[in-house]
Amino acid sequence: MSAHDLTIGFDADDTLWHNEVIFERNHERYRALLAGYHDATTVNRVLFATEMRNLPFYGYGIKGYTLSAIETAIEVSGGRISAAEIRQLIELGREMTTHPVELLGGVTDTLAALAPHYRLVLITKGDLHNQERKVAKSGLAAHFQHIEIVSEKDTDSYRRLFARHRIQPEKFLMVGNSLKSDILPVLELGGAGVHIPYHLTWAAEHAEPPVAHPGRLFTLRHMGELPEVVRQWAQR
Amino acid sequence: MSAHDLTIGFDADDTLWHNEVIFERNHERYRALLAGYHDATTVNRVLFATEMRNLPFYGYGIKGYTLSAIETAIEVSGGRISAAEIRQLIELGREMTTHPVELLGGVTDTLAALAPHYRLVLITKGDLHNQERKVAKSGLAAHFQHIEIVSEKDTDSYRRLFARHRIQPEKFLMVGNSLKSDILPVLELGGAGVHIPYHLTWAAEHAEPPVAHPGRLFTLRHMGELPEVVRQWAQR
Repeated sequence: MSAHDLTIGFDADDTLWHNEVIFERNHERYRALLAGYHDATTVNRVLFATEMRNLPFYGYGIKGYTLSAIETAIEVSGGRISAAEIRQLIELGREMTTHPVELLGGVTDTLAALAPHYRLVLITKGDLHNQERKVAKSGLAAHFQHIEIVSEKDTDSYRRLFARHRIQPEKFLMVGNSLKSDILPVLELGGAGVHIPYHLTWAAEHAEPPVAHPGRLFTLRHMGELPEVVRQWAQR
Repeated sequence: MSAHDLTIGFDADDTLWHNEVIFERNHERYRALLAGYHDATTVNRVLFATEMRNLPFYGYGIKGYTLSAIETAIEVSGGRISAAEIRQLIELGREMTTHPVELLGGVTDTLAALAPHYRLVLITKGDLHNQERKVAKSGLAAHFQHIEIVSEKDTDSYRRLFARHRIQPEKFLMVGNSLKSDILPVLELGGAGVHIPYHLTWAAEHAEPPVAHPGRLFTLRHMGELPEVVRQWAQR
């Protein structure tokens, strides 16, 4: 295959820049704030259940998370939480919307090495406003021919993206930290996947590892290993 | 000009379906809930100021509105609002995310009449998740060649859309209820605008009417009048 026919998709949160660790630090402060009402395990359990129940209404992102966190706080405190404490929760959530974008190691060099030879596309899900902010702050936008912010990453949404950009699945490689959102749907459609696990995974992104897909599924430890895998994949 | 070269952009909220009236009904219940703490004028003023202050963090949409409504309630109540009342505010906001999509009069017929002859594009700003839900519920998606959900509608965002879809501004007509978001930026870029005012306008969308742009700026009372204006514009 000619390299210029090939498209490489990149997830953003926890693939190009840190995200889950920011939520995790926020959760720690959240649990500390609620420590007088309930133990951390209960808070975690109720928060996750509330987030999952609200997902059809709110979708992904910080604002929906913040609303679920307030709802959880009211529930686990039995309605005893004060207005001042809820104001702190709003503040905690808002801080996340302005958190600096911290790139993962090897990202800048890898994108710069690949961009002249392949069509690079950023494919991220979540809140439009906040994802646009992070793309802008990252300084990485110029490496990508297209930036796609979608509300969900499943086979339907990848199929729509393939149609929109006239991508043949067998000429598409997706790079990301989430088996569920980045790898499994792309393998199902006939594309290839490079899984680069992040040290933290949100429970909602949990998925069983797929069976082996020789030549179509790669697992790497960090982004610096990507150019060599792309070279192998492009020459098959 | 050949009609098939021509693109017509449609705003969605308050152009294709009711939106501001849903927020307004919500505001009434919100003010009623806070009536024991402060008068309606003060609640309105503090809410709008809070929304504008939070816009850079939250962007547009129901979730950001709900967070600002909670913050306002804490402020105007001097921290006396109860957890149970805040839970009601969360519920009020969540109801809006599932509100039925009510089309404005003449919309279905007008889109069906224009779709065979022009390239129709839906251009709406706001929350990705909720806008996608409304597009799906509206039953109108099939009329549009492209559906673009953007975080802001200004000259920069229209310029990016024109580049993405290879639209020449002089062959583009934008239809919408907001002078600020739908009409002024498009006129500035050399396109044409059809302003169809809605009976309510959110204060953040207020703009001074533009000077006359003969042949490029039209004001209609309702969507049913659009096909005749399009015919005139296409034949100029």
